[in-house]
Amino acid sequence: MEKVEQFELSKEYLEKLQQAIKEMDDVFILNTLEGINPADISTILLEFSTDESKYVLDVLDYEVSAEVINDLDEDTRAKFLKNFKNKEISLMLNELDSDDAVDIINELPLKDREEVIALIENKEKAKNILDLLRYEEDVAGGLMAKELVKANVNWSVRQCIEEIRRQAENVEKIYSVYVVDDQNILLGRVSLKRIILAEDHVKVKDLYDDEVIAVETYMDEVDVAEIMRKYDLDAVPVVNVQGKLMGRITIDDIVDVITELAEEERQMMAGISEDVEEDDSVWMLTRARLPWLIIGMFGGLLGAQFIGVFEEDILLVPAMAFFIPLITATGGNVGIQSSSIVLQSLANKSVFDDSFLKRITKVLLVALLNGIVIAGIVMGMNLILGQEMRLALVVSLALFTVVLLASFMGTVTPLVLDRFGINPALAAGPFITTANDLLGLLVYFSVAHLLYYG
Amino acid sequence: MEKVEQFELSKEYLEKLQQAIKEMDDVFILNTLEGINPADISTILLEFSTDESKYVLDVLDYEVSAEVINDLDEDTRAKFLKNFKNKEISLMLNELDSDDAVDIINELPLKDREEVIALIENKEKAKNILDLLRYEEDVAGGLMAKELVKANVNWSVRQCIEEIRRQAENVEKIYSVYVVDDQNILLGRVSLKRIILAEDHVKVKDLYDDEVIAVETYMDEVDVAEIMRKYDLDAVPVVNVQGKLMGRITIDDIVDVITELAEEERQMMAGISEDVEEDDSVWMLTRARLPWLIIGMFGGLLGAQFIGVFEEDILLVPAMAFFIPLITATGGNVGIQSSSIVLQSLANKSVFDDSFLKRITKVLLVALLNGIVIAGIVMGMNLILGQEMRLALVVSLALFTVVLLASFMGTVTPLVLDRFGINPALAAGPFITTANDLLGLLVYFSVAHLLYYG
Repeated sequence: MEKVEQFELSKEYLEKLQQAIKEMDDVFILNTLEGINPADISTILLEFSTDESKYVLDVLDYEVSAEVINDLDEDTRAKFLKNFKNKEISLMLNELDSDDAVDIINELPLKDREEVIALIENKEKAKNILDLLRYEEDVAGGLMAKELVKANVNWSVRQCIEEIRRQAENVEKIYSVYVVDDQNILLGRVSLKRIILAEDHVKVKDLYDDEVIAVETYMDEVDVAEIMRKYDLDAVPVVNVQGKLMGRITIDDIVDVITELAEEERQMMAGISEDVEEDDSVWMLTRARLPWLIIGMFGGLLGAQFIGVFEEDILLVPAMAFFIPLITATGGNVGIQSSSIVLQSLANKSVFDDSFLKRITKVLLVALLNGIVIAGIVMGMNLILGQEMRLALVVSLALFTVVLLASFMGTVTPLVLDRFGINPALAAGPFITTANDLLGLLVYFSVAHLLYYG
Repeated sequence: MEKVEQFELSKEYLEKLQQAIKEMDDVFILNTLEGINPADISTILLEFSTDESKYVLDVLDYEVSAEVINDLDEDTRAKFLKNFKNKEISLMLNELDSDDAVDIINELPLKDREEVIALIENKEKAKNILDLLRYEEDVAGGLMAKELVKANVNWSVRQCIEEIRRQAENVEKIYSVYVVDDQNILLGRVSLKRIILAEDHVKVKDLYDDEVIAVETYMDEVDVAEIMRKYDLDAVPVVNVQGKLMGRITIDDIVDVITELAEEERQMMAGISEDVEEDDSVWMLTRARLPWLIIGMFGGLLGAQFIGVFEEDILLVPAMAFFIPLITATGGNVGIQSSSIVLQSLANKSVFDDSFLKRITKVLLVALLNGIVIAGIVMGMNLILGQEMRLALVVSLALFTVVLLASFMGTVTPLVLDRFGINPALAAGPFITTANDLLGLLVYFSVAHLLYYG
């Protein structure tokens, strides 16, 4: 048994491998990598140069190298594949499930795609890949694999097992056998367990479960993930509008979808505009970060122009300037909190959402409580610290108003974005803080002007 | 076939059910809920009062009601279970997998736990539950179920199938049959597919795959999730330090772990200190939000005190106050960006992390580029807008410094938190913005003071 802890990548291990590559010692490389999980080989290749990696992949069987390539992240894979001839790529794709093969084809230069598909030996696989290429990547059809085991409802268990035997080569994990009629319409499923436990002559008809949950080819990946999570499914069949069985989605792909969605949300909330990671280039990292920084900067410059209008007031009561950061920070914090609570409930869509009015009433009640506490403490502190009564009043009144307005904005913005099909996580990032900074300044200086000159 | 779209919860449906509950029409209730997935019944109960829900659950078989209770969220479940007698709870637990049963027991009042376990009819299940109670909820042992199918390495395929038949009642999804020796030491696994395809007389010994990935009972849930994701596993066996097979973790539990971790991170980044949702009470929502708002408020008050030191400068150059929001907002945005990039790479732990020095160098390079662009644009804008040269210089110099410092802080803070076992997402929230607000003010007014009087 190989426990995970037992495979440890050491510097020595890597150096020995690199030495073997330099000496073209294929036997050593094969022996060393024998029995190591392809996912671990992928990790090793991340430490190698493109040429070294190419050498290792050439030495391995196409069956193994295909899995290794499949386990790489997109960026690294694209870099590696540039060194492969179309024929070599097609030999690897031949070994992969159709959904994984399609993902890789989608990353190839447009001009190579057709040739690579034409070169795939297994013609059924090539046809499957062509079928799948029709779908967008983020719908059920784009996630599904064509490989699955299905049985006609009129077969016997014996015939079912024959079919599994026939397909065993192509389908790595079976989960369920899907039951269809003569028109390939999905009728239900039967678990491997039931097949094992049934007598050979029993008909599929008398064995199968007709309450199978299926998704349609054009269902959004987010909804597919939610359904698989809710019903604890490890695979879900995909049907077209006529109810014909088109493929199936397995849970490992959904785990990837959930992980990617969480990453995307994190980046949105942090104001990073591209999918970057720490090991991307300085240039890519800068490009991903600048857009929101520049938007925030223009917000700041606009704020400066706005405060400039009140220059006279500041000259008269310079202490007014002291509380600018307090006002803007509170607005930002309240806004982010509000929108992240909306994000949470958008993620766990419930069937009966409260009405908009009920939602907003609740949000404002919470804001009222938060606002009173914050404004109250600040009032007390300011008086203790010997701040002028009128200014203390201005600051607390402005804070209270900002908490209310920022709560409202933070709640409404993600709902509006979501309605228009834009990722609502955008609202829980620099977008809302920039907007709330300006809102806060507007409130603060208006209240001040009113109380001093009003 | 039941497609997901076909089960739609309508108001009419709910009202009919509620009417039936009022009239105690058990037959109608049973017929209506017949064949509806327990997860959907859970959704229905969310719309009912506790008494109505209790009535529905009483009408259902324990087998179904157990699944319904299992599919509820923790808060609702705790509320419902208060209405059940210990005997009733034990009858439901009797129907659940040991891992789910343990989760529910952990939510019961301490005084009831022992009695509920003692009342469980299936003594093996009760023993399994007691075993599992020993583990923390967030390690492999706390996630695993005791229900699994195992086979002795010396058995034949026929014996294996007999064992599956014996266990079929208890194990809902089999995935793999785990292969052990006479001491229950895990040796490997054999897939159901291979068992189906093998002849009856073949020995397990000649069939099984000895390269199984297993996790130890005390492995953290985050690491378990990462391993199952990396190797695309749908189930992973759990062993103790001696290598004995203790249980197995299935992918549905890991999907829940990943979803919860993402929610937790979102709340941390938004400065929400408790696990709240939109439909929690106003009081709970306020309590979850106030702590970080108050911390931010004290940050703001401290900032006010600090700016107060420079009152004379503001009197002299009131325009200095105009740029306070620009400085603090930029610091906040840069800080959040930096820490979220670190979060990302902490989530996808790679085997060879770059050295700390290399990381920081890169961060500072990116900051340098960002800083030059931002400071440059602001300089240009200020000159175009007719701002005094010296002030424009102060603002741009301060901005540049703030970008550098905030990048550094935003990178180091999550790394330090992580080192001390604190969730690093804390660093990508109000924590870093508050700290960077103060840092920004310090830099801005120091630079200004220096350039005007230095």
